[in-house]
Amino acid sequence: MTKIPVGILGATGMVGQHYAALLRDHPWFDLSFVAASARSAGQRYADAVAGRWQPSTDLDARVGELVVEDAYDVGRAIKQRKKCAFVFSAVEMGLEETATLECAYAEAGIPVISNSSAHRFASDVPVLIPEINPRHATIIPAQQKARKWDKGFIVTKPNCSIQSYLIPICALAQAGFPVERIIVTTMQAVSGAGHPGVSSLDIIGNVIPYIDGEEEKSEKEPLKIFGSIVNGKIVDAKNPNISVTCNRVPVVDGHMACVNMEFGKKKPSIDIIKEIWASFKALPQAENFPSAPARPIVYVEDANRPQPRKDRDKGKGMIITVGRLRPCNLLDARFTALSHNIIRGAAGGGILSAEMLKHLGYIS
Amino acid sequence: MTKIPVGILGATGMVGQHYAALLRDHPWFDLSFVAASARSAGQRYADAVAGRWQPSTDLDARVGELVVEDAYDVGRAIKQRKKCAFVFSAVEMGLEETATLECAYAEAGIPVISNSSAHRFASDVPVLIPEINPRHATIIPAQQKARKWDKGFIVTKPNCSIQSYLIPICALAQAGFPVERIIVTTMQAVSGAGHPGVSSLDIIGNVIPYIDGEEEKSEKEPLKIFGSIVNGKIVDAKNPNISVTCNRVPVVDGHMACVNMEFGKKKPSIDIIKEIWASFKALPQAENFPSAPARPIVYVEDANRPQPRKDRDKGKGMIITVGRLRPCNLLDARFTALSHNIIRGAAGGGILSAEMLKHLGYIS
Amino acid sequence: MTKIPVGILGATGMVGQHYAALLRDHPWFDLSFVAASARSAGQRYADAVAGRWQPSTDLDARVGELVVEDAYDVGRAIKQRKKCAFVFSAVEMGLEETATLECAYAEAGIPVISNSSAHRFASDVPVLIPEINPRHATIIPAQQKARKWDKGFIVTKPNCSIQSYLIPICALAQAGFPVERIIVTTMQAVSGAGHPGVSSLDIIGNVIPYIDGEEEKSEKEPLKIFGSIVNGKIVDAKNPNISVTCNRVPVVDGHMACVNMEFGKKKPSIDIIKEIWASFKALPQAENFPSAPARPIVYVEDANRPQPRKDRDKGKGMIITVGRLRPCNLLDARFTALSHNIIRGAAGGGILSAEMLKHLGYIS
Amino acid sequence: MTKIPVGILGATGMVGQHYAALLRDHPWFDLSFVAASARSAGQRYADAVAGRWQPSTDLDARVGELVVEDAYDVGRAIKQRKKCAFVFSAVEMGLEETATLECAYAEAGIPVISNSSAHRFASDVPVLIPEINPRHATIIPAQQKARKWDKGFIVTKPNCSIQSYLIPICALAQAGFPVERIIVTTMQAVSGAGHPGVSSLDIIGNVIPYIDGEEEKSEKEPLKIFGSIVNGKIVDAKNPNISVTCNRVPVVDGHMACVNMEFGKKKPSIDIIKEIWASFKALPQAENFPSAPARPIVYVEDANRPQPRKDRDKGKGMIITVGRLRPCNLLDARFTALSHNIIRGAAGGGILSAEMLKHLGYIS
Repeated sequence: MTKIPVGILGATGMVGQHYAALLRDHPWFDLSFVAASARSAGQRYADAVAGRWQPSTDLDARVGELVVEDAYDVGRAIKQRKKCAFVFSAVEMGLEETATLECAYAEAGIPVISNSSAHRFASDVPVLIPEINPRHATIIPAQQKARKWDKGFIVTKPNCSIQSYLIPICALAQAGFPVERIIVTTMQAVSGAGHPGVSSLDIIGNVIPYIDGEEEKSEKEPLKIFGSIVNGKIVDAKNPNISVTCNRVPVVDGHMACVNMEFGKKKPSIDIIKEIWASFKALPQAENFPSAPARPIVYVEDANRPQPRKDRDKGKGMIITVGRLRPCNLLDARFTALSHNIIRGAAGGGILSAEMLKHLGYIS
Repeated sequence: MTKIPVGILGATGMVGQHYAALLRDHPWFDLSFVAASARSAGQRYADAVAGRWQPSTDLDARVGELVVEDAYDVGRAIKQRKKCAFVFSAVEMGLEETATLECAYAEAGIPVISNSSAHRFASDVPVLIPEINPRHATIIPAQQKARKWDKGFIVTKPNCSIQSYLIPICALAQAGFPVERIIVTTMQAVSGAGHPGVSSLDIIGNVIPYIDGEEEKSEKEPLKIFGSIVNGKIVDAKNPNISVTCNRVPVVDGHMACVNMEFGKKKPSIDIIKEIWASFKALPQAENFPSAPARPIVYVEDANRPQPRKDRDKGKGMIITVGRLRPCNLLDARFTALSHNIIRGAAGGGILSAEMLKHLGYIS
Repeated sequence: MTKIPVGILGATGMVGQHYAALLRDHPWFDLSFVAASARSAGQRYADAVAGRWQPSTDLDARVGELVVEDAYDVGRAIKQRKKCAFVFSAVEMGLEETATLECAYAEAGIPVISNSSAHRFASDVPVLIPEINPRHATIIPAQQKARKWDKGFIVTKPNCSIQSYLIPICALAQAGFPVERIIVTTMQAVSGAGHPGVSSLDIIGNVIPYIDGEEEKSEKEPLKIFGSIVNGKIVDAKNPNISVTCNRVPVVDGHMACVNMEFGKKKPSIDIIKEIWASFKALPQAENFPSAPARPIVYVEDANRPQPRKDRDKGKGMIITVGRLRPCNLLDARFTALSHNIIRGAAGGGILSAEMLKHLGYIS
Repeated sequence: MTKIPVGILGATGMVGQHYAALLRDHPWFDLSFVAASARSAGQRYADAVAGRWQPSTDLDARVGELVVEDAYDVGRAIKQRKKCAFVFSAVEMGLEETATLECAYAEAGIPVISNSSAHRFASDVPVLIPEINPRHATIIPAQQKARKWDKGFIVTKPNCSIQSYLIPICALAQAGFPVERIIVTTMQAVSGAGHPGVSSLDIIGNVIPYIDGEEEKSEKEPLKIFGSIVNGKIVDAKNPNISVTCNRVPVVDGHMACVNMEFGKKKPSIDIIKEIWASFKALPQAENFPSAPARPIVYVEDANRPQPRKDRDKGKGMIITVGRLRPCNLLDARFTALSHNIIRGAAGGGILSAEMLKHLGYIS
């Protein structure tokens, strides 16, 4: 099988680097195009990231030799189409500039799988979690038509911090137990803010009880992810009603969430919830996508788990680890969930979405 | 004024050391008796804590010269009554042994102000927060009568992690806005587990989503603290209904709590809540107790506060710092609170209780 | 006594904030002029530092009301001379720009006490540690003459990381035991890099074995500090020959140094060294300067000390804590030293220098 | 090929757990015997380590089913010889008890590869680093004869903190450039103290400048490792003369060492040193032992490397990462080295020694 050539916009940033690391030896995709700001353009990729390479695996020697392109030179990207059938966007700039740049690629016929929130709230742009809403990909033709784009399109992945609890919540809903109300408190890793991101002077031996914009996104995105497509637009679901408080803690990778939840009329027992999670499988598992873990949710019985440092790498960082499920004194039940914010929550999640889009025929 | 001589049981442990540090130059109390396990007995206190002194202030030279007594030798304590009009108990042993030892002192006529949970749930033993329930001290005569104790008695302070939010909740109730339901998630400092306590191998760059026994105590104690005295017994309040999730984070001192709360029928606005907190004063402030901060609650407007490292030392560690007050999507309002677990939550809170008991005439 | 009005250049940066905090209630100096970049100019100082105030003490309300001046508007500073008899410079910009700006103030008649390395290696600019080289202040008239400055001049403080071992080394030399060779390895706190400085993503649970430019400065500055004034120029000393390796560790404040040293022909015993350190006093102690600790060097016998978190605040952050003195298998002796890099190593050291200059009559 | 059955003494401790993790799927050895204290004996291994499993990989299900034996029941171990052809000793108890227990196994005919320092200084017990002193294994027959042991024997691995610099030093000596004098300062991870080991209260945001007994061992062991066998005894080498200062830093895994070194008369250039390190190979590489990295030493050119968190896992934790090589102002050269203390420095190093002993015919 010939691999599909793929590019990264924002390849020198932290998430861009993780895309490069995770695409190493990917069975379907071949990283052949790396673009960044004009400052890095023209350098070997290895030189452009020297001294600030973040992934724990070494940079692939072949990728290190790629010359960094200017992400703004879309014309050049088009000419190199054979190196760039679609792009992952991990650019680190203002939302408006990001939106403009991603549209330019889509308009030029290059599909964009974006980590940014720039288009997340456009009603014709899906926010994809392949285990939850693969059907939202079917909005792509309507998006292309409305925006007069030929082959290009834009899809996004959600905010990294909601992923640890949204898949477990989705599994319950699919099993007939929709959750109607959730109160969440998160403890998020510093890598969620990129590099350099959070100053060490602010976080060593400390907690910062606030992450700018994070709570708003976390309360809004789930309603879209659980939404329906009506007349070529994604219409938000009514539930669950969510209240989120976000904290930054001195952890490198791995976002934790303490969740209190209330079901609708049908309320599963603690044991039933565990069974639902243990047996949950979705499209990525059914079709055995390369980045899909065998089981997306793993429940641990040890009272002191999940822990970011010890559980984040489960399933190569793609598994959601859940624990401490027990009744809640006010709502119905409570649990603690963990996902690797850089893998499942960013680059790994983006690649899983790309695998799904390839499977569904939207990229080739 | 002659100072009242006071002792510490468990003087060599972490909380015991902080009692010794905070009692330095106390205007009413004079630390003259330090007791610990048989292992330390007979040593100079300075030698007994050498190499493991935790407070950031140096050990008082005079106190360093005190000879450590065997805490179990109650007879000797009695003989030294002039050195030991009452004791702070900060022993670190099993609950049953602690209960027995503290009763022995009380029976011998030496009042005990305890940090342990050993007696916290006995209906004739008050759990005191001087800003909230000074009237619970009036149960002391009934306790003495029931237990046939002459001058001795036992009072306790609550679990350290509830103090950051209980005083703010109390201030609201006293202003006519009782809170009926609370969902709390805590992020607690390692000093809460004592020394050596939490292994560094478990907590560096990590979060532990569980603290043994902490959630049960946190859900139960507030009801007693807000309770009433009926026939010589403290009867739990009906409200607030509390659901607490406790986490350990890599912070040295300072317990944080993210609180979602629901009022009864009367619901104050955000601005009213801030006003209530800003103006809150109670007995310790009215009577100007030596350890009482001028204001027990300080609200900070910066979105990224309170932070353990930057706010825990406010008011010499006795102030509760509160921030991020805003509406909750599910309940009525939410906020984040911080208190210094070793000062307000342990030794400082114990000393404030002692000051109150002295003011009320129970110790002299 | 009327206080001398003083200003801070770079008042909104991390070190500038610490100057503001330490000058609170200073008996000789009155902070009345705060200057920063054009971006902050015109704001109340309290607003300019809101959300990023670093010191653990609250901002003085009076100082918070000062309007931030544009540091580049030297003309305005001159007009406000009654608010600004001299300035502490804690600007955070390139060395060349810093040099130019500081010269502009000096030329305008406003003495500058600088934290920057911009002028540290000019032969007519002293690098002052008041306990070591007060006589270097006598070069000021020669500097003024050579540069055609009237009342203004520039003095500097050294790099923060050498201060922990240079005062102990100086004490030995003054006692007749000059050290000729030193091998040092440092473990430096993140606050040494300012704010935001070191990314948390780089340092949590990690060590960075390199600090740009630090080793060069650390090997060069001591020779100047120990140098002599010859014909209006400071001529470097020949000794000690120094080899320094600098590391960054996940510590908030407090630079540690592990030192191996070789004396000249006269070699003191371990006991003699301890005696020399314990009895060491210099001009700041003799004249009882407000910021001077009673003893600049404290030796701790506990094998596991000094520790940054537990010892850095000794003497309000102005004491050098030394421990682990023992023979070295290769050179003569080795020890570990600690100083608070932000207090003794930056703002506190600058204020002590100002106190000395006032005492010597250079500022008034 | 039939695998050799192997056991672990102290299998429930931290290092014992890492042995179990690293032996998973080992091509030559089959973990079939796990022994620990009487407290754990009789439990399933999975139950005995539940809630305190340290390795980042999950416990092998088959090994989890093994029943933990009482390590003191040597008779039972002998009967199970077919499960236990030799043992790795990772017991965590006093040196004397360890020495006695290990001798009991050796006397019973079961070779012991020990992590303990109990026998490290016996002249007939080798301290093995397979890249350095494979010839020291030839002392085994003399040891057996002297101690009247038939098939059993004892070999040890050295202290974990010297491994990062001893292999680089050895490579230079083998290339004709013996190092005569070394001054080292280490920054060691908390896992070096086992679990629970270092209290989080002591090390978060802090450095502890002392590790009990570590400096003595670090100055003594290299001379033995570089020693010669004379008349059935290992005679210490004369060089290098070493001075070591050991510090504990808040890092989970990975010991760093800053090294200043002086050669004998022959002094290689910086470039020559790098070439020697890059090309260094020894017996484990020549014979391609399963745990041997292709190159034991990797030199990194980035000025800010090696770093524990980013480099410790190179070569599955068996590579020594070296950087910052440059001239020293006092001695000849200086560099910084890193090794994974739990893999290369403990369990991985022990397994590599076992592979070498199997290759040399001492175990089968």
